[in-house]
Formats: sequence, structure tokens, C-alpha cells
Amino acid sequence: MKLPFQHLLKASQFDPSLLKILFDEARELELRTKSLELRVKNSELRIENFGDGKILATVFWEPSTRTRFSFETAMLKLGGKVISNYSMETSSSITKGETLYDTAKTISSFADIIAMRHPKEGAVAEFAKGSSVPVINAGDGSGDHPTQALLDIYTIWKWRNYSDFKSAFGELTIGMVGDLKNSRVVHSQIELLKFFGCKFILVAPNALKLPQKYKDLMKENHCEFSETENLEKVIGDFDVLSDTRIQQERFESEEEFKKYRTFYQIDKKMMTKAKQEMIVIAPLPRFGELLEEVDSDPRAKYFEQVRNGVIVRMALIKGMIK
Amino acid sequence: MKLPFQHLLKASQFDPSLLKILFDEARELELRTKSLELRVKNSELRIENFGDGKILATVFWEPSTRTRFSFETAMLKLGGKVISNYSMETSSSITKGETLYDTAKTISSFADIIAMRHPKEGAVAEFAKGSSVPVINAGDGSGDHPTQALLDIYTIWKWRNYSDFKSAFGELTIGMVGDLKNSRVVHSQIELLKFFGCKFILVAPNALKLPQKYKDLMKENHCEFSETENLEKVIGDFDVLSDTRIQQERFESEEEFKKYRTFYQIDKKMMTKAKQEMIVIAPLPRFGELLEEVDSDPRAKYFEQVRNGVIVRMALIKGMIK
Amino acid sequence: MKLPFQHLLKASQFDPSLLKILFDEARELELRTKSLELRVKNSELRIENFGDGKILATVFWEPSTRTRFSFETAMLKLGGKVISNYSMETSSSITKGETLYDTAKTISSFADIIAMRHPKEGAVAEFAKGSSVPVINAGDGSGDHPTQALLDIYTIWKWRNYSDFKSAFGELTIGMVGDLKNSRVVHSQIELLKFFGCKFILVAPNALKLPQKYKDLMKENHCEFSETENLEKVIGDFDVLSDTRIQQERFESEEEFKKYRTFYQIDKKMMTKAKQEMIVIAPLPRFGELLEEVDSDPRAKYFEQVRNGVIVRMALIKGMIK
Repeated sequence: MKLPFQHLLKASQFDPSLLKILFDEARELELRTKSLELRVKNSELRIENFGDGKILATVFWEPSTRTRFSFETAMLKLGGKVISNYSMETSSSITKGETLYDTAKTISSFADIIAMRHPKEGAVAEFAKGSSVPVINAGDGSGDHPTQALLDIYTIWKWRNYSDFKSAFGELTIGMVGDLKNSRVVHSQIELLKFFGCKFILVAPNALKLPQKYKDLMKENHCEFSETENLEKVIGDFDVLSDTRIQQERFESEEEFKKYRTFYQIDKKMMTKAKQEMIVIAPLPRFGELLEEVDSDPRAKYFEQVRNGVIVRMALIKGMIK
Repeated sequence: MKLPFQHLLKASQFDPSLLKILFDEARELELRTKSLELRVKNSELRIENFGDGKILATVFWEPSTRTRFSFETAMLKLGGKVISNYSMETSSSITKGETLYDTAKTISSFADIIAMRHPKEGAVAEFAKGSSVPVINAGDGSGDHPTQALLDIYTIWKWRNYSDFKSAFGELTIGMVGDLKNSRVVHSQIELLKFFGCKFILVAPNALKLPQKYKDLMKENHCEFSETENLEKVIGDFDVLSDTRIQQERFESEEEFKKYRTFYQIDKKMMTKAKQEMIVIAPLPRFGELLEEVDSDPRAKYFEQVRNGVIVRMALIKGMIK
Repeated sequence: MKLPFQHLLKASQFDPSLLKILFDEARELELRTKSLELRVKNSELRIENFGDGKILATVFWEPSTRTRFSFETAMLKLGGKVISNYSMETSSSITKGETLYDTAKTISSFADIIAMRHPKEGAVAEFAKGSSVPVINAGDGSGDHPTQALLDIYTIWKWRNYSDFKSAFGELTIGMVGDLKNSRVVHSQIELLKFFGCKFILVAPNALKLPQKYKDLMKENHCEFSETENLEKVIGDFDVLSDTRIQQERFESEEEFKKYRTFYQIDKKMMTKAKQEMIVIAPLPRFGELLEEVDSDPRAKYFEQVRNGVIVRMALIKGMIK
């Protein structure tokens, strides 16, 4: 499998056929990993030699242990190697003001592929211009975080037994809950799910509603959607609950934030109102909007998502590296 | 060898039979490392394939280059791989306040075994509750630091020519010198040595005497002990001098600290009063309580301890990983 | 190849015959890397097994992503492994004040070779005294940075088609431009180039002229040199333009710095005045003294230098490790 782009900057680079190619590879890697684990206890777990000698650089301008570890684990499991800088902002050249272009020229002389996070929207794309090797956007502020969206959709697909996309996604009602205005995760999910004719129910406080741009995208793709502030009223209709945290950094004052913080709290009681065959997905971390008491519910898939993230990133690296 | 516990949180999880199993493995690894080094100069030094594909995560909430490098070296020498975060406190999710439980759920999705340090007593145990893979306590504040105690005891055993524990430890007089009140290292050593009927001489300023709890432990296990403030008077009786630094962070004021700082200074002159066949062990770093002029004395074992630490951690990882 | 010194602390440890040995090895490694890349796409890229099981520790007391990544990449490409601490100053023992000697005793118990950077001149040499394994100076403040000088000279040699040193370097006119007073890079280049009878043209503002010591060195070695403040007048005579940044940290006030900052700016227009067969080398980062518009000029070799740095460091590690 070769993916037909050099850099992955936006979830919208994927259409259904590319998604199919990536997910089939991911599924294959998942199966091989599992069978290897069963077969070769305490011995060789390397999935293939493909990655041997290849180097991933993780270049994080803001720390994210979860995302960095996921990329590094993916590369190591492929048999590759890792060089890592997880707080670039403290690096001398950076603080001295070297351009992203120059930093990219340099780091791409060392690595075969780069996963980069930056607090500023567009910074990863700017960096990619200077890079001679593939760059994966591991989050660029309020911009995009395509691998998160890919692992979200992969988690749904896996739950739907890896069936063909039309039947896996086509009849689902996706409930999107939380800060739909600012969440790049939600926006990227829409970019990917729009192809399959899902129904969306958008649940957000009035101040945090989904931007018109994404509603237009749904309309253009003939996806039905409705909007409400009231989660309780609609949760029973969801097949997938995509929960997003309401983040303090989006608000001007702490008071305003507190108003919304646990506006929607997913707890055991709320879960009784949902379908038995629904699933809950959420990017971690969580801070009170999704209670620990829900973890043991088989519908809770947010920790399985973490494991799926490694698989999807393995497939991506494999598909993008030269 | 399989160790019969999932997580290693306290030195007291070891009894003599477990200690025997661990140390035999460590000795075996030590011998194989050495013979490999002699035999295969400039080529394959990997001790075994066991660790291939397995990943150790070092998760340090406070930095400790010595301990982290020791764990990572151990894993690499086993043929395994490492993902590392050595200043978790600067990681975004952490500063945002994610629970240790959630962090553990996440990181244990990536790694096969985790070595964790945290400034707060009990934090490693709390983390372990969320982890689906083995967790090794690499120091939890004033709590425990079991691998340090294990390498201390291993160093004594090695000096005693790896003989059976009863004769290796049974007839020793262990002099414990320094801050016996706060030193987790001393406390853990007692947890392990209590089994063998050693004699203890406790040398501490009155304000930093060994807590009653550990004296009770000695009594219950029929270990003789005596207490004094005067090192010079008793050093001639020691077979092992276990030296611990008096740490500034244990004192309220700098003046109080200065009073005790070099209360006991091990220098060449002091060493002339000790037996010729005694050894000095100490956890590093040192700050004036143990002088460089002692390093060339064959009785000084504190740098050999660093090397033994890698060996013991190799055996531990091998025994704990699934 | 074995290099006949334990530690590499200064560029001046190399004479022409040693340089020949190192560069021949580097060239060999470069050829093998390339042919491997052509032959084994997506598979085994490891150059040799030599490094297997060997561990490089990168110990950086001030961050430098470029230099650290270069060393780590070199070791990984040799098949070796890496343990890394790239902000030692935040490490507890260090802030507590452990001596460099003790830190070296400890870290050399883990690693087979150490690359160390420190902001203080002489600190790496002090560290090396305690180390039982080879230490490579990766920059010690205003002291030395020998691997940078080696890769600079290697870049010139490669451009001269790897011909014998006398004809590769002997007839060159080297233009050294920028802060010749403080640049350790320039000083180290002189230490290496002095052997070959190059001609030097020294271009610096009066306040930043080359120290007498290095002029004496040129005289002793029968190297011609001239000095000027005016780049435009002499650039047409250069075969190699060695450009060095004028660094803010060398000046007492920001105003004084601004005076010199872009005193010599290498841009397209300036390049039209240089020979067609000249090359430009420069240690990165750059901040306005060397414009991006020059990058596409085939004479610009500063990004190729980054790649050559990996090759030269591979040869060094291979030649120094036990």
C-alpha cells in the first residue's frame, strides 16, 4: 500500500477509497499483531522488517504524551526507530527564532518520516514545505488532528465488524456532543463521515454550536442533521455518541467556562437512556464530562480507541514512508 | 523465571525465596553479559531475544537521570525498546489534571511494562490500579524505591561471592549511617535484610533516628540492633557501611539542614578506622558526606552498585513482563 | 579503524593522517548507505551489525535538537541504541549539585559512548575525567565543537571529489566571514585546515576580528591570510565561503548587536559577485545573515552539511567505541 500524498495535514485528504485502503492495511496489521502475540510469547513480536533502519522523528512544539507515545509505539512495533523532541519550544535554535522551514530542512535530513505537533494552526503545513520526507500532522492548534479522526472512524468500523463502509456507516445516527464550535476532532470526523450518508444530531450549548461551514458540508453531502441543546431528549436515538470536552482555553473568563464545563455529563444514569447497542467515543483526556463509572460499560470505547490509534498510525506510517 | 506479582510497588514484596529467584536470574544475566562482551567484540551484544518487540515506558513525574537511564539501559540490553517521558509534569494532559488512573489506562495501551517515578507517596500504586501491564515503582517520594534496595542487597551478595543467603548475609554487621528517619533506601534495606538475622548498628543524629516501626520489624525478626550518634566509636564493627545522605528537603530551615549536612563525613581518615574487609554502599548522588578521596579504596562499592542496578533491573523486567 | 584517543574534546586532536582515516571511513559509510538505499527499498537499511547492543548516551546540558538528532541518527543507523537526556539542567541530581565527575562515573556505567554538550567551556573535559567510556564533545560553550568542524571539512572534501587532501584543500582560498572573534566553528576549522596550506581571507567587523592566537597558528603553518571589513571587495576570490552568524549572546547590549547583525548579508545579489565554482558552508541556524533565496543556488552546501554530519559522526562513533 502506498498513500498518494506526501504529507498528511488534514483529515479531508481522505476520501472513501483511500480510507478503505488505509483501514484494510490497519486491520491486517491488527490481525497480525494479535496472532503474533498468541504465537510467540516472550519472543519476536516485530510485525515486519519493513521499518528496520527507518527513523521516525517526533517533533512536538507542545507536549502530548498520549499522541507522541502512540506514534512512537507504532513505529517501534513496525521495527523502526525513533528520535524525539517533545518540547521543541525549549530548544535553543527555536527560541532563537529559526524558521519552521529551516528546522524542517534539518530534521528531514535525519528522519524518514516526521510526526509534528504545534500549537499554531497552519504551522505543520509551513513546516512540511521545508521537509524532504513525509510529515504527519499530530495536531496544529485549532487546525486539524487527522490521525485522531482516523482512529475515531476506525473504532466505529471495527465495532461494525469491518463490514463494507456503506453498511458500516450508512445507517448510523451520530450524536455529537459538547463544544462543536471549537473541537477540531468533531470537524475532522464530519470531513470523513460526510461521505457515507450518516445522520447527525448536534448537541451543544447555543454559544458552542457547530460552525455553518460544517453544516453546509453536511447538506452538500446529503447528510441529515438536527440541532438541540438537550442531550437527554435525543440520546436514545444515537448509535454513536461522539463526546468532546469543553475546554477552558476556549473561554475568556473562568466563570464563562464553569458555566459550560459539565453542561453535558455522561454518567451511568445518562447511559440508561441510550440504546444498548450504542458506543461512546471520546478523545482523552476527560475532566468531569465523562465519569469513570461509565468505563466498565461495554459501550464505552474510549480506551479501545487508544489501542486502535497505534494500529491506524502503523498503517499510516507504512503507507507514507518512502 | 516468572515473578508472582503484577506490579512491584514495595521492597517488602520480596521474601528470601523470591529474592533467590531474582538474584539467580540477575547473576546469570551478569555472567552472560560478561562472556558475550569478551567473545563478541564490536558485534552482537544482545543478551537474548526475549525483549524483542517489547516496549518499556519510563514515566517520570520528577526527573532522575540515574534511575531512568538504568531502567532504559536494562531494557535495551534485553533487546527491548523504550518510550520515555521524563518530565510528565510539563505534559499538557497532566497539567490539565488528568487522573493517574486515566494516564495509566492510556500508557499501558502502548507499553508492555512501565517504570514510574512520582514525588508523591502512593502515586505509583494509584497509577498501577489503572494499568493493564506491570508497573515498577522507580521511587514514590518518601514512599519506597524497591529497585534501589534490591541492587543494594545484590551488591552485598556479589561481594559475598554469591554464596547462599544465610552465610552471605547471616553473619554481617550492617552499619546504617545518616538520615535513618527519612531515608526510604534504609527502610527498604531493612525490609529485605530482616530475613537473614543480620546485626544492625544504627548511627544517626537524635533528630533523625530510625522510626520505631522499623525497630519493631527488627525485633520481630530477631535481628539485633544498637543505636548511637557516634560513628567513629562503632565503624570498626561494620561489615557493611550503608551510607545515606542527609537531604535538605527534609528540613524546614536551611540552618537546621546545615547542622546535620556533614554530621558524618566518610573520608580517608574515617576509613582507616574500618575493617579491611568492609564495604561501603550508598545511593548516589553525594554532596560532601562521602568524599572523592574514598573512591579509589577497594572497599568503595557505590559505583559498582550503579552497574549492578542495570543487572538487577534486567532480571526484574524479564521476570515481570508478560 | 580505531582512533588513537579515548575522548574527542578538541578539533586539534586531528592531524592530516587521522583526518584521512576518519574521512575514508565516512566515505565508505556514505557509499554503503547509498547503495543500501537503492538496493533495499522498504527493508533492511542497517549498515552493519557493529553497533548492535551498543548504547550511545546523549547528555545535553543545553538543548540543541540539530546536534543531538545528528548523533542519535548516526548511532541508530549504525545499528546501535540511544538513551537521551536533553535538558540535564532540570535533572534533580544536577540541580542538587552533583559533580560532573560523579555524573560521568554513573552515565558511563550505562552507555558505551557519550556525546555531551555543556554551556561552560571545559565542562566536557571535566566530565571526561570521570568517564570510563569515550566522550565526544558536542559543544562546550565558547570552547570547541569538533564534530562541527569535521563535518565542515568533510563537506569541502566531498565537493573536491574526495581527492587527496593536498589537492583537495591545498589550492583553496577560504573566506571566513562574520564573527571571527567568538566563533568556535571558525577556530576549529583553522585548526584543521592549517595543515594543508590553504589561503585565508578574514572578513570581520573590526570589533570581531580573529584573535591573534589563530593568526599565529596560520603563520606557523605557512598559511597566507589577509584581513578586511569589506566582503564585497573580496568575495570574488573565495573558493569556500565559511559564513558564521553574529550571535546576540556575545554582546552586552541589544543595540551593539543590531549594529553587527546583518553586517554581512549573503543574498542573491552578493552571490553574483562570487565564483561559479565556489561553495557556501555555514553552521545553522541562520537569522538573516544568509537568505532563503540563496538555498536553491547549487553553491549553497549548508543543508548538505547536515547530512554529512550524520556520516562523519557515524565514522567517529565507529572509530571511538570499544
